[in-house]
Amino acid sequence: MSDEITIEMINDENFDQFLKLVDMLAIYEKLNPPSEKARHRLRKDGLSECPKYEAYLAKFKDNYIGYIIYFMSYSSFLALPSLYLEDIFVLKEHRNKGVGQKLFNFCVKKAKEKKCGRIEWHVLDWNKPGLKFYKKINAQHMSEWHYYRLRNDEFDKFL
Amino acid sequence: MSDEITIEMINDENFDQFLKLVDMLAIYEKLNPPSEKARHRLRKDGLSECPKYEAYLAKFKDNYIGYIIYFMSYSSFLALPSLYLEDIFVLKEHRNKGVGQKLFNFCVKKAKEKKCGRIEWHVLDWNKPGLKFYKKINAQHMSEWHYYRLRNDEFDKFL
Repeated sequence: MSDEITIEMINDENFDQFLKLVDMLAIYEKLNPPSEKARHRLRKDGLSECPKYEAYLAKFKDNYIGYIIYFMSYSSFLALPSLYLEDIFVLKEHRNKGVGQKLFNFCVKKAKEKKCGRIEWHVLDWNKPGLKFYKKINAQHMSEWHYYRLRNDEFDKFL
Repeated sequence: MSDEITIEMINDENFDQFLKLVDMLAIYEKLNPPSEKARHRLRKDGLSECPKYEAYLAKFKDNYIGYIIYFMSYSSFLALPSLYLEDIFVLKEHRNKGVGQKLFNFCVKKAKEKKCGRIEWHVLDWNKPGLKFYKKINAQHMSEWHYYRLRNDEFDKFL
């Protein structure tokens, strides 16, 4: 099947299909799908002249069945850009047929083109298929690094 | 003391001082300092018209005593940019005087200016002063997210 998959950059025509897939990932991750305002920002941020992220869709027989979102991060230690894989998602009914692998390989190709020192990503601890895939491809689990966030509703405490 | 600290963007004049601080962080993190080629890339990537990262130095009485490096990442879930704090470092002899807090507050100011949904960062599990600081400021530890990397010497296996 993976030979019949094409990979297509997001554009004005396929953007609504892309948003439907983003909704499906939100459902999978037990999160709320993006609001109307967030959908508007996603469009603006992804399709502007200086996009804040890049996204590609996997297409099979006229259906969009998966996608990736990535952007460039930076490693000060390597002094090289990294490719940060924000989302990789395949619809449930199309899993285990090599679609995720094809999307991941596409990321690697992009990372090579952009002369990145590494690809990096996070995966939720309950996402067993994801963890299995990353084990299979022999990715490094950076378990000594703790991941932290500060939300913008906390910002004013620091100003 | 923190009132006497000024914050200065990296530029052609202070860049060598910045590189010395990067070396000191490498020593603290038990990593090799950047090679000559990496130092050259850091300069190009930080001082070009479209910099790949932004960096600021903390200055106290004509001495540079700390720095931050950050860049813009993106949250597809929020549909907003995030500020990713790549490095925050203060020389050992100037710790516990509010310099790190001042640099962190500066990041928050930048994140607010750039309308970020969050600030995010990683910290090594043995960095006890870092962990203590992030606990003090009530940052969220995203322990359910596992962090993975794939190095560029593995890329060709996927192509």
